Amino acid sequence: MLLPPTHMALHSPRLLSLTRRAFSSSPSSFQGGVSMVQGASRGIGLEFVKQILEYDDKEHVIATCRNPSASTGLIHLKDKFADRLKILSLDLTVETSIEASALSIKETYGRLNLLINASGILSIPEVMHPETTLNKVEKSSLMLAYEVNAVGPILVIKHMWPLLKVGGGHGTGRSAAVVASLSARVASIGDNRLGGWHSYRSSKASLNQLSKTASLEFARRKDPVVCILLHPGTVDTDLSKPFQRNVPPDKLFTKEFSVQKLLSIINNVKIHDNGKFFAWDGQEIPW
Amino acid sequence: MLLPPTHMALHSPRLLSLTRRAFSSSPSSFQGGVSMVQGASRGIGLEFVKQILEYDDKEHVIATCRNPSASTGLIHLKDKFADRLKILSLDLTVETSIEASALSIKETYGRLNLLINASGILSIPEVMHPETTLNKVEKSSLMLAYEVNAVGPILVIKHMWPLLKVGGGHGTGRSAAVVASLSARVASIGDNRLGGWHSYRSSKASLNQLSKTASLEFARRKDPVVCILLHPGTVDTDLSKPFQRNVPPDKLFTKEFSVQKLLSIINNVKIHDNGKFFAWDGQEIPW
Repeated sequence: MLLPPTHMALHSPRLLSLTRRAFSSSPSSFQGGVSMVQGASRGIGLEFVKQILEYDDKEHVIATCRNPSASTGLIHLKDKFADRLKILSLDLTVETSIEASALSIKETYGRLNLLINASGILSIPEVMHPETTLNKVEKSSLMLAYEVNAVGPILVIKHMWPLLKVGGGHGTGRSAAVVASLSARVASIGDNRLGGWHSYRSSKASLNQLSKTASLEFARRKDPVVCILLHPGTVDTDLSKPFQRNVPPDKLFTKEFSVQKLLSIINNVKIHDNGKFFAWDGQEIPW
Repeated sequence: MLLPPTHMALHSPRLLSLTRRAFSSSPSSFQGGVSMVQGASRGIGLEFVKQILEYDDKEHVIATCRNPSASTGLIHLKDKFADRLKILSLDLTVETSIEASALSIKETYGRLNLLINASGILSIPEVMHPETTLNKVEKSSLMLAYEVNAVGPILVIKHMWPLLKVGGGHGTGRSAAVVASLSARVASIGDNRLGGWHSYRSSKASLNQLSKTASLEFARRKDPVVCILLHPGTVDTDLSKPFQRNVPPDKLFTKEFSVQKLLSIINNVKIHDNGKFFAWDGQEIPW
């Protein structure tokens, strides 16, 4: 199965300078923590790993993806941050590989303070394309989208849960661990005004429900874990190119900008935010 | 794959008499129409077929299920309403069987005025059980729930769409055809306060998003088709028995009561209701 880069950004220096300031005013509350980024080979996931390592010199990062040796971005970061970056092979579609990652993290760090589910598919050349009409809806695309966009992330949360409970705010300036999963505004049923993209929309709506359901259990058990969903904005990617026609230039973000904004939300998230769905600008998105 | 009876009702004469009156005050607006009930072997689906045939002597009904010869309920109705009931074998998980049903309906009637997606799974003994905790979430249960509760119904809508467009209000007292899919209040992300039931909740949330997405395309194309979602209430079933402890007796419905209420909604639905999600009492449910 080929997974595409979903958020391969084209650089926009104007946005970059504008937002690096914004981010620098919001220091990491995970200093001294152990963070995991799932789906870290490229795009937004890789950018999360990079920014966490660059902006916080006391944070350890576990970066996971299916095939680490193919990620030049991760290999480059490993050269630079050898002692604080651990790279693990994790295939979202194979539960035993998620369990193996959890075991490895447990043995090395014993805990997690932050889990970012950054993976996601929108299209795969020759295999799956965002549907423009109901007539193009296919079972295979729907099932693949569910498997990668909904099932995989909730299984990661399931297996990292014990490490997040042990972690909580331990070793950081925080009172609770955070699970942040990348959703998308198009997952919103209430905000759906255009239609189309059936597989992507429905799989991310499903992820929203799964994340909300997990957040309720964390709250009921009084676990020190906050579970949120994030919309990164429309990030300028090769993949989004065919769909960018109607996006105003100031709404088309670089991955640097988007991840700075998302990290600012993650850094400032509180217990009462558990179960919520935030856009890059901190606004809540309706379900 | 074994699919359970999801809404096998235990009779409650008090509720029954109370609501038959309510229904009789709302005559069918589909008189002279052609209606299809998908998932009609038993429970709520079978009750839809029965009430439509009994209350409207000019309406034709196509009842579909995987294995019609095993449905004593449908066989009984066929004896009584031979000239107005057509029974077809349709397996939700096999798209070619959906296409074959569409072709058969086209050849016999040339149109559809009403499509009710009544199928759904919550649990299967020894295979899948509503999850009480994140620890019990399994990939196999999630994927099975998506396949039956979300993918199957949207594929039925896809293949019946041409027949619904031809049908519209033709031959009835209505101005548009109706697609009504059975969802559930627990599908609501915003209304999720208890957690649990991950597979069921997320698959029905996905169905909600798929139905909403289809409704937007119907509106954009100005098709005479209204697409809604319905919550039948908590219906007294063998299956719901283990979960009935906290349900007040007056909130536990018979299938007769629930279907009367749902048919009343379907009969009165207007173009501006397209895309909405209604409970049995006509109240809209948040996404």
